[in-house]
Amino acid sequence: MAEKKAWSGRFKESNDPVFERMNRSLDFDINLYKEDIALNKAYSAQLNKLGVISDEELIQIHNGLDEIRNEIEQQGLSLFDASTEDIHMGVEARLASKIGDAAKRIHTGKSRNDQVATDVRLYLQRQVGEIIGLIKGLMTQLLRLANEHNKAVMPGFTHLRQAQPVMFAHYMMSFFFPLSRDVERLQDALKRISIMPLGSAALAGSAMALDREFLRDKLGFAAVSDNSMDGVLSRDFAAEFLADIAILGVTLSRMSEDFILYSSEAYKFFDLSDKVTTGSSIMPNKKNPDSLELTRGKSGRFIGNLMTLLTVLKSQPSTYNKDMQEDKEPLFDTVRNIKDVLEVDTILLETMTINEDKMRNAIDSLSFATELADYLAGQGLPFREAHGVVGRIVRDCVDNNTKLTDLHSAELSQYHQLFAEIPDDWGSIERFLAKRNLPGGTGPDSVACQLKKAEKILKK
Amino acid sequence: MAEKKAWSGRFKESNDPVFERMNRSLDFDINLYKEDIALNKAYSAQLNKLGVISDEELIQIHNGLDEIRNEIEQQGLSLFDASTEDIHMGVEARLASKIGDAAKRIHTGKSRNDQVATDVRLYLQRQVGEIIGLIKGLMTQLLRLANEHNKAVMPGFTHLRQAQPVMFAHYMMSFFFPLSRDVERLQDALKRISIMPLGSAALAGSAMALDREFLRDKLGFAAVSDNSMDGVLSRDFAAEFLADIAILGVTLSRMSEDFILYSSEAYKFFDLSDKVTTGSSIMPNKKNPDSLELTRGKSGRFIGNLMTLLTVLKSQPSTYNKDMQEDKEPLFDTVRNIKDVLEVDTILLETMTINEDKMRNAIDSLSFATELADYLAGQGLPFREAHGVVGRIVRDCVDNNTKLTDLHSAELSQYHQLFAEIPDDWGSIERFLAKRNLPGGTGPDSVACQLKKAEKILKK
Amino acid sequence: MAEKKAWSGRFKESNDPVFERMNRSLDFDINLYKEDIALNKAYSAQLNKLGVISDEELIQIHNGLDEIRNEIEQQGLSLFDASTEDIHMGVEARLASKIGDAAKRIHTGKSRNDQVATDVRLYLQRQVGEIIGLIKGLMTQLLRLANEHNKAVMPGFTHLRQAQPVMFAHYMMSFFFPLSRDVERLQDALKRISIMPLGSAALAGSAMALDREFLRDKLGFAAVSDNSMDGVLSRDFAAEFLADIAILGVTLSRMSEDFILYSSEAYKFFDLSDKVTTGSSIMPNKKNPDSLELTRGKSGRFIGNLMTLLTVLKSQPSTYNKDMQEDKEPLFDTVRNIKDVLEVDTILLETMTINEDKMRNAIDSLSFATELADYLAGQGLPFREAHGVVGRIVRDCVDNNTKLTDLHSAELSQYHQLFAEIPDDWGSIERFLAKRNLPGGTGPDSVACQLKKAEKILKK
Amino acid sequence: MAEKKAWSGRFKESNDPVFERMNRSLDFDINLYKEDIALNKAYSAQLNKLGVISDEELIQIHNGLDEIRNEIEQQGLSLFDASTEDIHMGVEARLASKIGDAAKRIHTGKSRNDQVATDVRLYLQRQVGEIIGLIKGLMTQLLRLANEHNKAVMPGFTHLRQAQPVMFAHYMMSFFFPLSRDVERLQDALKRISIMPLGSAALAGSAMALDREFLRDKLGFAAVSDNSMDGVLSRDFAAEFLADIAILGVTLSRMSEDFILYSSEAYKFFDLSDKVTTGSSIMPNKKNPDSLELTRGKSGRFIGNLMTLLTVLKSQPSTYNKDMQEDKEPLFDTVRNIKDVLEVDTILLETMTINEDKMRNAIDSLSFATELADYLAGQGLPFREAHGVVGRIVRDCVDNNTKLTDLHSAELSQYHQLFAEIPDDWGSIERFLAKRNLPGGTGPDSVACQLKKAEKILKK
Repeated sequence: MAEKKAWSGRFKESNDPVFERMNRSLDFDINLYKEDIALNKAYSAQLNKLGVISDEELIQIHNGLDEIRNEIEQQGLSLFDASTEDIHMGVEARLASKIGDAAKRIHTGKSRNDQVATDVRLYLQRQVGEIIGLIKGLMTQLLRLANEHNKAVMPGFTHLRQAQPVMFAHYMMSFFFPLSRDVERLQDALKRISIMPLGSAALAGSAMALDREFLRDKLGFAAVSDNSMDGVLSRDFAAEFLADIAILGVTLSRMSEDFILYSSEAYKFFDLSDKVTTGSSIMPNKKNPDSLELTRGKSGRFIGNLMTLLTVLKSQPSTYNKDMQEDKEPLFDTVRNIKDVLEVDTILLETMTINEDKMRNAIDSLSFATELADYLAGQGLPFREAHGVVGRIVRDCVDNNTKLTDLHSAELSQYHQLFAEIPDDWGSIERFLAKRNLPGGTGPDSVACQLKKAEKILKK
Repeated sequence: MAEKKAWSGRFKESNDPVFERMNRSLDFDINLYKEDIALNKAYSAQLNKLGVISDEELIQIHNGLDEIRNEIEQQGLSLFDASTEDIHMGVEARLASKIGDAAKRIHTGKSRNDQVATDVRLYLQRQVGEIIGLIKGLMTQLLRLANEHNKAVMPGFTHLRQAQPVMFAHYMMSFFFPLSRDVERLQDALKRISIMPLGSAALAGSAMALDREFLRDKLGFAAVSDNSMDGVLSRDFAAEFLADIAILGVTLSRMSEDFILYSSEAYKFFDLSDKVTTGSSIMPNKKNPDSLELTRGKSGRFIGNLMTLLTVLKSQPSTYNKDMQEDKEPLFDTVRNIKDVLEVDTILLETMTINEDKMRNAIDSLSFATELADYLAGQGLPFREAHGVVGRIVRDCVDNNTKLTDLHSAELSQYHQLFAEIPDDWGSIERFLAKRNLPGGTGPDSVACQLKKAEKILKK
Repeated sequence: MAEKKAWSGRFKESNDPVFERMNRSLDFDINLYKEDIALNKAYSAQLNKLGVISDEELIQIHNGLDEIRNEIEQQGLSLFDASTEDIHMGVEARLASKIGDAAKRIHTGKSRNDQVATDVRLYLQRQVGEIIGLIKGLMTQLLRLANEHNKAVMPGFTHLRQAQPVMFAHYMMSFFFPLSRDVERLQDALKRISIMPLGSAALAGSAMALDREFLRDKLGFAAVSDNSMDGVLSRDFAAEFLADIAILGVTLSRMSEDFILYSSEAYKFFDLSDKVTTGSSIMPNKKNPDSLELTRGKSGRFIGNLMTLLTVLKSQPSTYNKDMQEDKEPLFDTVRNIKDVLEVDTILLETMTINEDKMRNAIDSLSFATELADYLAGQGLPFREAHGVVGRIVRDCVDNNTKLTDLHSAELSQYHQLFAEIPDDWGSIERFLAKRNLPGGTGPDSVACQLKKAEKILKK
Repeated sequence: MAEKKAWSGRFKESNDPVFERMNRSLDFDINLYKEDIALNKAYSAQLNKLGVISDEELIQIHNGLDEIRNEIEQQGLSLFDASTEDIHMGVEARLASKIGDAAKRIHTGKSRNDQVATDVRLYLQRQVGEIIGLIKGLMTQLLRLANEHNKAVMPGFTHLRQAQPVMFAHYMMSFFFPLSRDVERLQDALKRISIMPLGSAALAGSAMALDREFLRDKLGFAAVSDNSMDGVLSRDFAAEFLADIAILGVTLSRMSEDFILYSSEAYKFFDLSDKVTTGSSIMPNKKNPDSLELTRGKSGRFIGNLMTLLTVLKSQPSTYNKDMQEDKEPLFDTVRNIKDVLEVDTILLETMTINEDKMRNAIDSLSFATELADYLAGQGLPFREAHGVVGRIVRDCVDNNTKLTDLHSAELSQYHQLFAEIPDDWGSIERFLAKRNLPGGTGPDSVACQLKKAEKILKK
């Protein structure tokens, strides 16, 4: 039965079924069906222009491909039998069963090598567009929360200990801007994704006088590839995409880590809605932030998928090798999961409650220690010395269980005479914020500027 | 409709469908159905002993579970509706639909936390046994080839350049012994896999007076876990398994790299059978070693899966967190793919042809250069000086396109007088091999010992 | 000047200095100096037995090598000039400068390929022993804390929310047992590390009739390698070691994550000592858990080092390739850093204060919800129904800000009549614990057993 | 002696020496000395404008910093004592020892959090510029070789088997274009690297009214950061850089793999010069491509370093945590090694000999099989059928050891009548190439266009 494979001419024996199963990529490259059909439509139009396919055959081919698209959408994998190697062979064989000989012509002058490279790039181009849209949806929620709670303050942390107070809107923006860079990175990646390898054939370029610009235009690519060997072997665009998503995943994992903490009993800054939390099958008291934990966990998967692809690509000799079949599952897996994560995190932000009072009340008076050091420095004491003086005050507060901001000039002057004239409200939140209106600071004016900039970024 | 979830008591709103989809693990943890059913059978027997479940109920439960097992084997995922969270809930709900209230009792005193940890360990215990069997099958083929071609010689390479000749059987054994270490590692891992967490409940231990030894015995574990918090959170055994397979994958990738080379036009040492090779859809001349390339490529995937799990586990707070849901897909993916790889590589070895003549004829006369250096050293010249003398001879051979082994005492003495008495057959393969019969060497006696040891290893 | 290299005989031109710098491994393989000297001492003794080296020369060689060891300990890298390729060449050249010709003989019958493989294995054998000692030191501290606070209780968490109370000693043991598995893994790895490749020469085995058992015994290996090609190329033992440390790093990262949380203002369960914390250069109030954060961060490095080695090894053709030079830096880096981490974490545990009151007082009354469900189940209600009833009670407590454990039979009976006879202390910590004395549970008797087992493990 | 640390005010005990050693980053962050000094110069100028530092003090500070720069360049690490934590403290303490109190003022209004983030970005900005220059140097050599051998042809490979002939210049360009994308990626990354966080202070923004535009301009950044929390915590730019280099490393590993093969005895297409190859300490015959093997091996290190950073960053809570100290070593290691690799690979290309005859003679006649299939397709036979016919011809050639291109119309017509008129030169290399002049193809005209485009790219 060796005759069934598209390439079986020189083979005497058929493949072992175990190998056939391992070799088969249809189970996952069926994800490319839309792209494979679009490619075949464009390519057959080109073959028609070159006289390889008649006008009538072209109509048959296009109608047949449209039908197959519908069939796949309804029946999925079950449309194909177990011996079908991949989506390309699946589509072509199905077409042949519908329209006969004309179907066999559509592979003239192309190879699966350039075909699959083209399909994957088309697929990623579409997915990146959708992912950018989802990131912007998430950014929109961050901006909304910032605007709706634009007077709220909260403790700012370093080393998971309170450091200094910050505005809640400032904190929201500390995720907005990284996400805007994640968008930028994906937009940059598109320049390298949107390149059409079709016409590269197996590796040396097609022997047909293909009008590659015609094909590029039909398929919506930005450019055609410069070199056929590069065209069939390079997957740097896919590795770049996986790296961009791994970095995005890290951004989201950091936000998740914070939100898991801040919505826990120990903080209660945020309440997560029932829509994105779950209970325990044994403990009726539990309300668990599964959506955030999955977001955090899946960031590990994005890193693993990147690792897989880089390792697969490393040290491969020119040009196409079957190792490349392993490039697709990490891509599909990352695409599916990042979209889930972005959608769910957006719902989480949409439905989350912000407890402004809890956040304000949680601010520790020790967070104002730097204010004292700055005050001394402002009076002319070198900062390093001022820091030492205040360190001792802090130590005494901790030892005596005193609130730092309850100390005024009388008490403070015992530590350093330069405190003699310190105003009584030296440790108020408002005063703290007002001093931090430089660009990027957590002062109200600076934050207002950030929100305006954020709005502009979203409108782009 | 929030009432449908097992944990929905304290929830007012139902989950968002997007979150529900992301949260659902049934699509992959259905792989654990055999283990989940076995666990429920053992556990319900224990509850019966404790008087929680009557004898009659136990029979109903066991019959029901057996039915569900059959149903899953026939209908797969389609047995469950879209809102089923995971295999545990799926089995339990299905059981309830069959036998009613008694089904609701089987969760008494356990939690999904200890249940899933137990299922995964049971699953891995079974899979590791099967994988060890497959590795031994591959080792058997290596040994068979070594025995069948036990006179054959071939070039040995370092830096992908010919270094010194070796026996083909020696070369085969250079993969046999690493694989035997891969087996050892998996056997060692079993000690840490075969530990039963059941009884840990959510994290603090079950409130039922479970006889954990009874459960252990029923389920075929070697030991029970020592600490319930450790029992539900630890996945070190899974990471160890993935690491062991990643290392095994590296062994196989190295063998693949060699075999791809040695079966190429440039070497032709081996011919791969049609059973495990493919052609090109465009180039009728091609016969491609896809099985080996997939083996090589999939070693990247094993590394990526290990990376995923390690990263997911890193920095998780005690004890169970939903991030853990991400532990299973890398495991299932690695299990499925390593089994495919091992099966296909075994077929490849079974059906491969060894071209003894090509291998012997390929040996480059320069490979015998060390013999000359050793000869001089044997005559008392410090090895480092001998090396220098022979280096110059080699350079002249390369420049003059002379065959090194054609030089005899007359010509060699011009480089160093100590060559005066060198025997004419100094550069014969047999002489070369005969000098390397120390344990582990490529001499015929040493190799015969290796083959005997290999046989013993396989019999264990 | 090409003559300077040990292998320069056939070369006409000398290496480019840029390449020479990249090719040089001395900067890091100087870490192997002890092992390289030990190897040369054993090997020269063997050459003496074979008559290659005279008794007098042997004494010169051994004395020379001892001197060089001292020189390296005092002068380090500066002992060698910039053109020295690696530690092997460095030691040999230095020896030649001391004792002349005899030094040139010590390389007879070996190759840098088997020499470096032997050095690395000797090195790891020593380091693994030391690392196991350090892990046990850390385990000793966990056990000490458990014993010293053996009445203390604390909240147990899942999903970073309170789940159920646990004994503090139980929590300590939840890190002790994973660490004991980390020790086991390293002990298992030693079986595959302690194999001597010396005698494999370049790849085909030495042409000298070496007594490999003599060498093995002198060097303290457990076994000799079975196959010379395997001997020079395999690095599975190194990958296994890096995997074991990566897994250990994950264990430690989880402990760090917990301890960072539990020592923060939000919990205050533990106080970290000044010995292992730092302040901020700007905020005098800060006391930061840097030691724990570095432990957590370095677990990423251990994972990265493992990935480096696996990726380097993947797809290398037989046998030695220069890619292997990249195996050493990840090893040295991982060894140095894990030892630092283990030492510092031990000091941290030694100097940490446990706030028993804070831990007890932090236990949330909702953690006892499962007790109510278990109670109902004990009265015959299917557990799943009991869970639903209690879920509603919890919801009402949250809505009305009531303490769950303040509810007694009167209030509870409004939710379900089976609560009529519930004892008043249903929600006491002691009652909760007493019900969890099954093996591995958090009950006092079970924990006492764990502590005894821990003691035994440490004595092994 | 706790008083010595800059932050020791509130501490009663000094750090444990073991922790101090682990906590110290000076050993590696000394790499940032140029940047740290530049930052301090710019920042003190700003403090002078704000009146914190007098004109005279500013001169002292600038002179002092210039002196320290010279001292570091001459004495390196030995300039600092063992208790110095990091480069920032080292520089400041050294300055204080020179000029006294004024030095203590330069830390007013900044934090090590924003300082180190700024230093790392400055460092990367400089290094990326240098790396781009080195890549372009390598591309220049590829283009030179292509131009100098612009008539040469060679076998093109897929699956490491001959597929179709290609022009050598086309093959060179198959590495040129990927490298040009590697350059593009780094240029894109610069947009996200060249952002100044200085002014973010610890996390909330500086309390000084800093003119951040003044600082940006002095330091040569393209933009200032938008949000102070984001400013101190984000390392996405560093992960992006490491990902870009990992992808570049993969490109280079693929080139290395090819060149190792093509310079081996089995191919002899290229001869590598003595400048970048080495010998064996035991086998005088060896000439090993160490430079290429190190290039290939180091690509594993780049991947590992990326994994380290991503894993370190994953799941960190806001904002600065000490885990971040682990961000620098992977960066420095990657920078140093990629520069070595690029320099050495450039020398390798500069000094490599191309054997045009060997390449042309190596082309297998079976590589022309596609020509026959295309011919039949051109005559109207569906391509899939033509492929089958030619498959059978190939099989017969292999079985009968016939050269495919020796078959002409007479013999071919026995397989299919459409071969009746096939021209005699159907299987000539020139005819093959001439048919592949579509954009990106391996035809001479297409390749000439590629070379012109390459020249333009380099001029940019």
